[in-house]
Amino acid sequence: MTEHTPTLSVGMIGYAFMGAVHSQAWRTAPHFFDLPLRPRMTAVCGRDARRVAEAAATLGWEESETDWRRVVERDDIDLVDICTPGDTHAEIAIAALAAGKHVLCEKPLANSVEEAEAMAEAAQEAAGRGVRAMVGFTYRRVPAIALARRLVAEGRLGEIRHVRAQYLQDWLADPEIPLSWRLDKAKAGSGALGDIGAHVVDLTQHILGDPIREVSGQLDTFVKERPLAERTRGLSATVADTATVERGPVTVDDAAAFIARFAGGALGVFEATRFATGRKNAIRIEVNGSQGSLAFDFEDMNVLHFHDATIDDLEGGFRRIVVTEPGHPWVGAWWPPGHGLGYEHGFTHQVVDLVQAIADGVDPSPTFADGLQVQRVLAAVETSSDTRAWQAVSA
Amino acid sequence: MTEHTPTLSVGMIGYAFMGAVHSQAWRTAPHFFDLPLRPRMTAVCGRDARRVAEAAATLGWEESETDWRRVVERDDIDLVDICTPGDTHAEIAIAALAAGKHVLCEKPLANSVEEAEAMAEAAQEAAGRGVRAMVGFTYRRVPAIALARRLVAEGRLGEIRHVRAQYLQDWLADPEIPLSWRLDKAKAGSGALGDIGAHVVDLTQHILGDPIREVSGQLDTFVKERPLAERTRGLSATVADTATVERGPVTVDDAAAFIARFAGGALGVFEATRFATGRKNAIRIEVNGSQGSLAFDFEDMNVLHFHDATIDDLEGGFRRIVVTEPGHPWVGAWWPPGHGLGYEHGFTHQVVDLVQAIADGVDPSPTFADGLQVQRVLAAVETSSDTRAWQAVSA
Amino acid sequence: MTEHTPTLSVGMIGYAFMGAVHSQAWRTAPHFFDLPLRPRMTAVCGRDARRVAEAAATLGWEESETDWRRVVERDDIDLVDICTPGDTHAEIAIAALAAGKHVLCEKPLANSVEEAEAMAEAAQEAAGRGVRAMVGFTYRRVPAIALARRLVAEGRLGEIRHVRAQYLQDWLADPEIPLSWRLDKAKAGSGALGDIGAHVVDLTQHILGDPIREVSGQLDTFVKERPLAERTRGLSATVADTATVERGPVTVDDAAAFIARFAGGALGVFEATRFATGRKNAIRIEVNGSQGSLAFDFEDMNVLHFHDATIDDLEGGFRRIVVTEPGHPWVGAWWPPGHGLGYEHGFTHQVVDLVQAIADGVDPSPTFADGLQVQRVLAAVETSSDTRAWQAVSA
Amino acid sequence: MTEHTPTLSVGMIGYAFMGAVHSQAWRTAPHFFDLPLRPRMTAVCGRDARRVAEAAATLGWEESETDWRRVVERDDIDLVDICTPGDTHAEIAIAALAAGKHVLCEKPLANSVEEAEAMAEAAQEAAGRGVRAMVGFTYRRVPAIALARRLVAEGRLGEIRHVRAQYLQDWLADPEIPLSWRLDKAKAGSGALGDIGAHVVDLTQHILGDPIREVSGQLDTFVKERPLAERTRGLSATVADTATVERGPVTVDDAAAFIARFAGGALGVFEATRFATGRKNAIRIEVNGSQGSLAFDFEDMNVLHFHDATIDDLEGGFRRIVVTEPGHPWVGAWWPPGHGLGYEHGFTHQVVDLVQAIADGVDPSPTFADGLQVQRVLAAVETSSDTRAWQAVSA
Repeated sequence: MTEHTPTLSVGMIGYAFMGAVHSQAWRTAPHFFDLPLRPRMTAVCGRDARRVAEAAATLGWEESETDWRRVVERDDIDLVDICTPGDTHAEIAIAALAAGKHVLCEKPLANSVEEAEAMAEAAQEAAGRGVRAMVGFTYRRVPAIALARRLVAEGRLGEIRHVRAQYLQDWLADPEIPLSWRLDKAKAGSGALGDIGAHVVDLTQHILGDPIREVSGQLDTFVKERPLAERTRGLSATVADTATVERGPVTVDDAAAFIARFAGGALGVFEATRFATGRKNAIRIEVNGSQGSLAFDFEDMNVLHFHDATIDDLEGGFRRIVVTEPGHPWVGAWWPPGHGLGYEHGFTHQVVDLVQAIADGVDPSPTFADGLQVQRVLAAVETSSDTRAWQAVSA
Repeated sequence: MTEHTPTLSVGMIGYAFMGAVHSQAWRTAPHFFDLPLRPRMTAVCGRDARRVAEAAATLGWEESETDWRRVVERDDIDLVDICTPGDTHAEIAIAALAAGKHVLCEKPLANSVEEAEAMAEAAQEAAGRGVRAMVGFTYRRVPAIALARRLVAEGRLGEIRHVRAQYLQDWLADPEIPLSWRLDKAKAGSGALGDIGAHVVDLTQHILGDPIREVSGQLDTFVKERPLAERTRGLSATVADTATVERGPVTVDDAAAFIARFAGGALGVFEATRFATGRKNAIRIEVNGSQGSLAFDFEDMNVLHFHDATIDDLEGGFRRIVVTEPGHPWVGAWWPPGHGLGYEHGFTHQVVDLVQAIADGVDPSPTFADGLQVQRVLAAVETSSDTRAWQAVSA
Repeated sequence: MTEHTPTLSVGMIGYAFMGAVHSQAWRTAPHFFDLPLRPRMTAVCGRDARRVAEAAATLGWEESETDWRRVVERDDIDLVDICTPGDTHAEIAIAALAAGKHVLCEKPLANSVEEAEAMAEAAQEAAGRGVRAMVGFTYRRVPAIALARRLVAEGRLGEIRHVRAQYLQDWLADPEIPLSWRLDKAKAGSGALGDIGAHVVDLTQHILGDPIREVSGQLDTFVKERPLAERTRGLSATVADTATVERGPVTVDDAAAFIARFAGGALGVFEATRFATGRKNAIRIEVNGSQGSLAFDFEDMNVLHFHDATIDDLEGGFRRIVVTEPGHPWVGAWWPPGHGLGYEHGFTHQVVDLVQAIADGVDPSPTFADGLQVQRVLAAVETSSDTRAWQAVSA
Repeated sequence: MTEHTPTLSVGMIGYAFMGAVHSQAWRTAPHFFDLPLRPRMTAVCGRDARRVAEAAATLGWEESETDWRRVVERDDIDLVDICTPGDTHAEIAIAALAAGKHVLCEKPLANSVEEAEAMAEAAQEAAGRGVRAMVGFTYRRVPAIALARRLVAEGRLGEIRHVRAQYLQDWLADPEIPLSWRLDKAKAGSGALGDIGAHVVDLTQHILGDPIREVSGQLDTFVKERPLAERTRGLSATVADTATVERGPVTVDDAAAFIARFAGGALGVFEATRFATGRKNAIRIEVNGSQGSLAFDFEDMNVLHFHDATIDDLEGGFRRIVVTEPGHPWVGAWWPPGHGLGYEHGFTHQVVDLVQAIADGVDPSPTFADGLQVQRVLAAVETSSDTRAWQAVSA
């Protein structure tokens, strides 16, 4: 960037957990990457005027707004970054695209396939006008994941036979953890399946470059009632009282498990749960091909395990690749080998690639269509869980 | 044992891979454990007179026989140890029990539920006469597995929510590996599902102390034709020729994946495959409960990972228990801490417990009824794969 | 922070690798931590006017300077952050402290004990005037390291018997890697010993809360001549030519190994090398006490392994603590459990604690006296390597 | 073996821990390997007639003897296997060799360099008469170690720079563990250094094919007095009483640490201790060369980690080789891939190679000269610990 680098003015809707990470990405990207557009953190938006003003100060936004429509309408905003719960995505994104704003939308794309379809349609139409839309499956931009995709694309694994993927957390294992919007179907749309299962669906399809065609699955709600919380904060919430506390229903799934068939023939096994005691954010993906295998665990996010079956059996084995070499995706901009990256770096890479795509006039990836396809897989899992039979993913 | 210890005379049918491990167990057990009966390795049986005689010499059996009926009939044989392919188990075991011989039968118990039912019935009838029957799910007697079962039984994991279990091998990943009896449905009854999937079905039910009630699964045969081998040896075989070699059909599954529901409510996810490149004998089991979790991988068989969720989060984590302390199951008879056991030790423990049960006049575990239950789970998986819907396990 | 939060104006000397990380820390800290003073990134200083101006733009500094004396003299600078090679630390730091500026000085504190002594003296004198000095042993502020120290301080390990610590890199294993300032004794003062060995000396003393009293060591220079580089960049450099390239002498150690005795009686074994092929930035520390043990590896920086020997042997083992809980040091300000931190976060924590100490009017830790003590250990290792005998650490 | 295979008649002196493992090896080897001589377990010898008779029955020896001289003199004994404490090795071994018996002697070869020299001399003289002598550094015959040696010998690691080796146990960490012969200098000769340090000295020299030339080390006795035990058993012992128990001095080292220089220039760092809480039998060896590295830990004994630095950095990393392929040393005689071996298998391999060498009329490896060289390294460490300076290894 130079002083002549044109500006990309950003307005962000929502300022909780996702808003904080997105803000760090917008602030950080220009200092490590040579961006073709200079992001300007123009405004952050939330319903509570005092709290959103505080957030603006803390997170580094110039101004705050209390109505997302106002952000969408402002002439001095080029891009709308949507960090709200899933029930609001469709309305905001479609309005923003209609108003000619580029959109970065957190995942899941929407709370229903119908909404996601409308969004993907809007994005396609907007693309014709040079307006770009991207859905925030940020884990794609963990360097180890990008390396995994590259190895598969280069044919290093041969024909893909097996995918096993789990997203394991444990923050709901305790039945006294209170209710929050993430446990309310009206707000969150889905539980473990949509919140975290969506990530492993997207990641495996991304790594394989191959979509899931049908599924057979099961959703579960282990703890059907939980204490009402006075006020939620972060991922969990605080309990108002202890034993005689009022309780409300959990309306989403606590866990999901499903078998899947990829278009290319690979057999997938998936799990998403918030009840895997001791696993904090274990996104675990294994791929077995005729010529090699991969294994990844986000709890050790700078490492990819790669088995090259073309190496003599006597010295073959899973290689622990520390994905911190200058030649690894995005890593050259950061630190020397062995100086690992953290959770938030994927968000910075997302900003980098989005800004580049906008400048280049091409669609960023993952597109809303990608988000819609994930949504369709999730919907098929839900249907399958109801019908207790295999379910094709709609196309 | 003293010079007055009574003898238990053993006749073994089959002398390939399983016969070799069983022989090592019969030879070794009396030197490390104080057995109430002294095993005598009286006769080994196979169809080829010259080769079985060689095997008797190599494996340490006094005599050789060429007709299993002769072994069953001999008055000087107390126990018949069945190490043949699954298609012969029922006939031999039922005849042996009828003749008043105790039976140790390799898994899977049989090649069909019908056969397994007949065997379980015969075993139950024989038990009334003081004749004992055991099925060889030896992995139960890996000390780390026994510790896992103990921790679950003691309630250390709380309410069990999730089981994920995989048995991963890779010896069929290469499509040029030739046919062998293990790929022939008539002989083997089943492929990865029955050969190795049976183990993880048995192990998880054993660890949980809870049976699987219904399943939804998928079988796959990735490589549908393979070269004919002139002669098989060990697990694989040697190819007669290279390119123009004659090929025959693979009539069993290469891989199986299924979701399961345990009686107690836990949600299970299972996989068995011989196509997981780089995984040699990876029996991997994880159990998540409301108060703790377990993880095991046979590729590191002397270790059990245990997460105790009742420990303060700030210092909690999966504990790598090296299961080689004198107080761990069976370990006191072997070496000091940290001096690990190998694959064959489970078979020695199996002999120890079987001999003890016979001397005590009680049924050894796992019983033929346990073997039948596993068979029913496998059959339900096969049915489910055909009907593409959930299938209850018959009871 | 509010709009009334007073400012802390920072001038940074040097803008290479360390300058980039420090800049990220100064930029980031106020957005995640509630600081009592608002850091202002007033000026960055380097000798090449064009390049330092570019650095200012890239790294986020308001102005650039080309003479460090000017930075030290400016009235609008409150704190001088020294990120230059070790040969310049003493002069700059002493001048800055004399001018009433707080100082953050990269490690090693200096290139000789004499310089370090002068600096520690200057810091002590300055403290009397309310002027603070801190040396940048940032790895102390990796949360897993802070947890390690806490466990030792709480007596959880009992009496400490053994410390083994290695800092392993491999970027010099190839003899064709060219010369750079880090291989020049005049500039760097020391090789692996001072550059990376210093970190494990500081970390182990910090975790134990106990200083090293004597050492017996050996320095090595495996590759005595290397190609001259036209221009260095980052950690390594680019070669001007290939075979007939001019070569120059390596005047520092490639590797160091030493045994040490801590004041409290623990026996230490240390290694620092840039020739450990395959190890990228492996800071590995193990501590064995009578009641427990710890193990850490920076290549998996969000994890601390802790063995509590007071737990029953039958279920004891090294616990893999994922140090990302809200209650872990500094972690509450970042992301939910399992969302790991990266290399640069320790630098942000360093800024946070330095700013807090300045506001509180107390000495930040590690002090220049701590840096001097490390320097004395390194000097004792060098002397020991020359005399080939044990050497006491001067006090 | 056939019925015409000539016999090798063995007499074993000592029947405690080592005697039990040796017995298992003599019993097992002929069943898995095609030996040119058929071992006959003729007699076991111990001082207590009743107990040695029991041991003969348990361990599988035909007869028992109470005077080792009688075993050495018996015409029907071809080989004497010495499993007694180190103070008796020299006398027995020299007498046996003089009597024309082949000798397998447990390590350490002797309790002093002088004794070891006499033994090596006797062995050299005996070799002229076709009488063979071998010292029992069995860990050499763990397949992963043999693979490590092969990789180094093939030049796969390039020029060796670093060796770091630790033998970590924790069975003395508790100061109330009572005295036993292993803590008595008169019997054991040495503590951690000779008992377990000897193994890592031998292993690293074996893997490198390069001897240690000089050392600088430190011995430590952390717990100087311990309760007297009424009677010792196995590795530890039982306490007679609790608090007012009589105590005696520990006359050997609890731990040893030393730096070493190999003849070829590699820099070694060694540790041996019985105070590393949580480490049960951790023989950990790492080798760093200019083109690759190795890492091994006996707590995961079927695995060797190998980093091949000639592979592109972007996909390089330590490869976890599961050393259970048929082509790995000795493994073809055992089980299929992934079915791991245990502690005792190295002893079986030792018997196999010894019997083969005797049949071939060549010296088995490791020779008594190898054992003497290890002894000289240990002596140099002791001297260095006294003089507090580097000490050359005598040649």
